[in-house]
Amino acid sequence: MPMINRLTIIGVGLIGGSLARALKAANACREVVGYGRSADSLQKAVELGVIDRAETDIAAAVKDADVVVLGVPVGTMVPVLEQLKPHLASHTILTDVGSTKGSVVDAAEQVFGSLPPRFIPGHPIAGTEKSGVEASFAELYQRRRVILTPASTSDSDALEMVRWMWQQAGAEVIDMSVEHHDEVLAATSHLPHMLAFTLVDTLARLEDHDDIFRFAAGGFRDFTRIASSNPRMWHDICLNNRDALLKMIRRFSDELHTLAAAIESGHSEAILETFERAKAARDAYCENSC
Amino acid sequence: MPMINRLTIIGVGLIGGSLARALKAANACREVVGYGRSADSLQKAVELGVIDRAETDIAAAVKDADVVVLGVPVGTMVPVLEQLKPHLASHTILTDVGSTKGSVVDAAEQVFGSLPPRFIPGHPIAGTEKSGVEASFAELYQRRRVILTPASTSDSDALEMVRWMWQQAGAEVIDMSVEHHDEVLAATSHLPHMLAFTLVDTLARLEDHDDIFRFAAGGFRDFTRIASSNPRMWHDICLNNRDALLKMIRRFSDELHTLAAAIESGHSEAILETFERAKAARDAYCENSC
Repeated sequence: MPMINRLTIIGVGLIGGSLARALKAANACREVVGYGRSADSLQKAVELGVIDRAETDIAAAVKDADVVVLGVPVGTMVPVLEQLKPHLASHTILTDVGSTKGSVVDAAEQVFGSLPPRFIPGHPIAGTEKSGVEASFAELYQRRRVILTPASTSDSDALEMVRWMWQQAGAEVIDMSVEHHDEVLAATSHLPHMLAFTLVDTLARLEDHDDIFRFAAGGFRDFTRIASSNPRMWHDICLNNRDALLKMIRRFSDELHTLAAAIESGHSEAILETFERAKAARDAYCENSC
Repeated sequence: MPMINRLTIIGVGLIGGSLARALKAANACREVVGYGRSADSLQKAVELGVIDRAETDIAAAVKDADVVVLGVPVGTMVPVLEQLKPHLASHTILTDVGSTKGSVVDAAEQVFGSLPPRFIPGHPIAGTEKSGVEASFAELYQRRRVILTPASTSDSDALEMVRWMWQQAGAEVIDMSVEHHDEVLAATSHLPHMLAFTLVDTLARLEDHDDIFRFAAGGFRDFTRIASSNPRMWHDICLNNRDALLKMIRRFSDELHTLAAAIESGHSEAILETFERAKAARDAYCENSC
């Protein structure tokens, strides 16, 4: 059975922290080193047993690491890679957990000239609306999917190690092209977040918003849960998957406009067809995944 | 302690069935009569103990009823009231559970000339994405809100009886004007349903939709739950609260358009402000209601 001797997590929050917990629980990793800008947050991670050692010096953090996981917002990828670059040993495998992959590959190209063969971009399709190491838990990746977007130049040992690591955390690992990843995530994750943020903000700006929220029911609570997500992180995501996201927003807007026109003109058939198609798709999705 | 001797439920589905169960559990009602077009569904309601007696004849169903609850889609209000009209005793109290109230008052005016003093329009802010008597349960209204929209001409005894009935089912009862109800519900319920239906349908119409849904995560599941709601019911709701709903769709569309423009031009501050305002509003709402 392989084993990661030393794993370094850059940015120990919900995602990185949960990975560390899961790998420790699976005995897949001997030592976890955490690096971050906030000494307080790192101290908390040590106290919670999520990491074994906290480092606020990047060189010390990645020294002798087998795997380095970048758990930082996608908007900070360039400066973080710049910092890392002088200290990465040639055997060290690098991976990330960012929600956008084109921008991560761009950042790597900007810093290294091209995507390093031992940098395997990754994205666990998991998370909650909460942030921070306090919200991390070992079971986050159980029965979740992790998408890896290796390049043709990627080192196959590095790819298999990153795959093995996520499997140890309980995930199903799938390889995909960078472009397809960014399109799929724009549709299923980035667009819904934009809609939830926009809906809640639209309501919050109404004059009688206290009364409005007071009469919201359970459906509203579920529908808007993702509007409680981290604003800075989602700011980074929407700017780092701009083209695919704007394309999806346009498609959605066009369809909402068509529905509004059908409601305005009382076009029953068109309204019913839309709702029925949506219900059928959602029920089918849920049969497989809920 | 008062008591409803005979309660008649017209349309024994999730909402009417749960009310019957709750009132029986609270010993607030001696006999529940169920009326509906489907003998099979009524038979099911008898077998489940939701109603004591099934009637497919409207005259027999409402005979000697103290309270008649209309649990039918808002789009069928006029024909149902036409059917009921010749058989309603003068002492019988009438109420409904429709999600739109302006249209229900319009229907009553169309059938009776004006809203009858003993017809108290009501709307329980409760439900699930499921439909039918099989989905009903006695606790549905516990700690939920019920809005009543009485008119100045409403009979105060009838109003207090309907209020008492919902309180026995565990709900908090609030009086509100018809117009305010329809605006508040357009914002917190009808608009979110339109967005969820439209999102799922937009995705279902993409070429690679199987792959799209396969990579949807937990946030998507929650966000789209309401897209599994009954299409016919929501068709009725959106056509019966057309003006308030279209106003809210326009406000939402304008704000989504503004956000898309900010993403396109990379206007970080505007994006962050929107997300932060939304998160603050959602967190505050949740502190009170989640």
